[in-house]
Amino acid sequence: MTIVHKVREKTPLIHHLTNQVVMNFTANGLLAYGGSPIMAKERQEVAEMASISNGVLINIGTLVDTELEAMIIAGKSANEKGIPLVLDPVGVAATNFRKKATEQLLDELSFTAIKGNAGEMAYLVDVAWETKGVESSDGNVAELENIAGKIAKKYETIAIITGETDVISDGETTKQNKTGHVMLTKITGAGCLLGSIVTASIAVGDSALEASYQAVEFYGAAAERAVKQASVNGTGTFIPAFLDELQT
Amino acid sequence: MTIVHKVREKTPLIHHLTNQVVMNFTANGLLAYGGSPIMAKERQEVAEMASISNGVLINIGTLVDTELEAMIIAGKSANEKGIPLVLDPVGVAATNFRKKATEQLLDELSFTAIKGNAGEMAYLVDVAWETKGVESSDGNVAELENIAGKIAKKYETIAIITGETDVISDGETTKQNKTGHVMLTKITGAGCLLGSIVTASIAVGDSALEASYQAVEFYGAAAERAVKQASVNGTGTFIPAFLDELQT
Amino acid sequence: MTIVHKVREKTPLIHHLTNQVVMNFTANGLLAYGGSPIMAKERQEVAEMASISNGVLINIGTLVDTELEAMIIAGKSANEKGIPLVLDPVGVAATNFRKKATEQLLDELSFTAIKGNAGEMAYLVDVAWETKGVESSDGNVAELENIAGKIAKKYETIAIITGETDVISDGETTKQNKTGHVMLTKITGAGCLLGSIVTASIAVGDSALEASYQAVEFYGAAAERAVKQASVNGTGTFIPAFLDELQT
Repeated sequence: MTIVHKVREKTPLIHHLTNQVVMNFTANGLLAYGGSPIMAKERQEVAEMASISNGVLINIGTLVDTELEAMIIAGKSANEKGIPLVLDPVGVAATNFRKKATEQLLDELSFTAIKGNAGEMAYLVDVAWETKGVESSDGNVAELENIAGKIAKKYETIAIITGETDVISDGETTKQNKTGHVMLTKITGAGCLLGSIVTASIAVGDSALEASYQAVEFYGAAAERAVKQASVNGTGTFIPAFLDELQT
Repeated sequence: MTIVHKVREKTPLIHHLTNQVVMNFTANGLLAYGGSPIMAKERQEVAEMASISNGVLINIGTLVDTELEAMIIAGKSANEKGIPLVLDPVGVAATNFRKKATEQLLDELSFTAIKGNAGEMAYLVDVAWETKGVESSDGNVAELENIAGKIAKKYETIAIITGETDVISDGETTKQNKTGHVMLTKITGAGCLLGSIVTASIAVGDSALEASYQAVEFYGAAAERAVKQASVNGTGTFIPAFLDELQT
Repeated sequence: MTIVHKVREKTPLIHHLTNQVVMNFTANGLLAYGGSPIMAKERQEVAEMASISNGVLINIGTLVDTELEAMIIAGKSANEKGIPLVLDPVGVAATNFRKKATEQLLDELSFTAIKGNAGEMAYLVDVAWETKGVESSDGNVAELENIAGKIAKKYETIAIITGETDVISDGETTKQNKTGHVMLTKITGAGCLLGSIVTASIAVGDSALEASYQAVEFYGAAAERAVKQASVNGTGTFIPAFLDELQT
């Protein structure tokens, strides 16, 4: 059974502590994929909400200090219960606040997976990365594999680096995925929704590496099918078509 | 004149204190129906904003403590001015924080209507409810009518329980509605938007019971029409088609 | 080269401190136009985020007090670096909190442009304005030009008044734009997204007046083209078609 079928069978409840820009798109995207989204960020309830969920996603895209506290509380609750916990360190290298917040999250919590683009992930292991570079060249993919392996070992996690070629590693095995479409880079929240879908997939999968790989592969293939829809003339019409394809 | 025509004639201004996941969808949906949305949650301005509105909606979907204070202030302002006030206790039974927050809202404020799904509404009157049950069976509808009647009497309000069969009660008269489509359960915020549309309808109607019933009936019928549109292939394309149908 | 081509060549990074209702639509709309959106509102990071951006937009639509502090910090950072700063005083006249917040923003910051509808802009220069009036009559357009000129001089800024006829003034030269469609008034966030697009245009243009005019003209023309799409049957289907047209 592929991971998407398992998700649809078990409809895992995923607790999101995510950014305000993508909440609606993420919720509709996860519902389309087969999961069940909940979003709660009050410090007084996040431990309880995390404890009744099947997976927890932390995304720092529009982080404020009170939400950072909530993320730590929810993450500790997930860790204590053995519930999968995923980090999306959006724009981590952009400001000192994000650097410190991410450091604190990585210090205090144990993540099942960490997902980001090349620049974000390279930052986590102190590798220089030219964000304007062509990510698909052979040399770069080898470097991405190096970064993913380092992250996986350093944080005892699954590292998922997204880009034209996605790289997924558990520190031992590294997989590549080439499905996807440039249209995903022209809408907001494509990476954020993928974080949610990866969390739901890990929540129901036997292997976090394999679940992550299948989720990333499915996601990119859905985008490829969506752009071929007759109704799609740009990013505006791509979004509904993509949500449709996440359901198929 | 049906309620939707009255809404379009009077374009009631509805002040929303609602969750961050559904704000955009709710605003566009209420505009399509004919109302005028405003969203404000700063404690220093919500009393004034509520006082110039024609209806106030409180939805606890992503509640944080500062927003609870704002809800109490806005609700008291609405109560003092005799402005319709509607509660959507999203996920009330999920955490102790939501239970206490809802208790406080119900203690300190007087609601014109309370809208929720069977599980949320059963919780409000201490009735056990198996949320995974088939809500449409005859026995269950009788139980829903019982719950709606209890809520209506206990809180002196209109109770609106949404599901495959919607049940609306003022404690004396109970009405059922069977319009709707399962697609509404596969997108985020369908219930939240309905809360907004019910608030706008009550704001312009002579009878809160009849306004609520007509709003729920219209809403479900719009969903039924939307799924029949040739452009609809899933939830992604259903959303714009549904917004279109809310305008017709 | 028209302003939209310059935007696409330079992909300016625009830091948004905007309202929660429109964040997703704004981000997708700016991406479609050719800019690069970032949204951050934690007080500890906004100075840094503003300083690495090419333009900063402040929109008070769902303002809370902590965000007002962040806006002041980000705005001062932009002013110090000479980065274009744009204000959208959403609903400024609705509450005392918004009046005082806007007064503080205008006192402490220097704006490259201020954009609002007639009622909001008239308030800024103490001109009485009947918000229900027909904004397109000749007499009203003359009054709008008067208001725009006053704002431009008082705040040493570009004033952009949106409506059936848009009026743009730098205090010396005043331009009118008549592109646009009533459909833009029936969706949420059309004005807010325009604020983002104006900011991106000013960020890459030689003349803020000309950049603003071209942005407003392009935006209205995109709406005109979108409503003619065969797929558009209401506001729901207009939104994706409009995002598509912003890309063309």
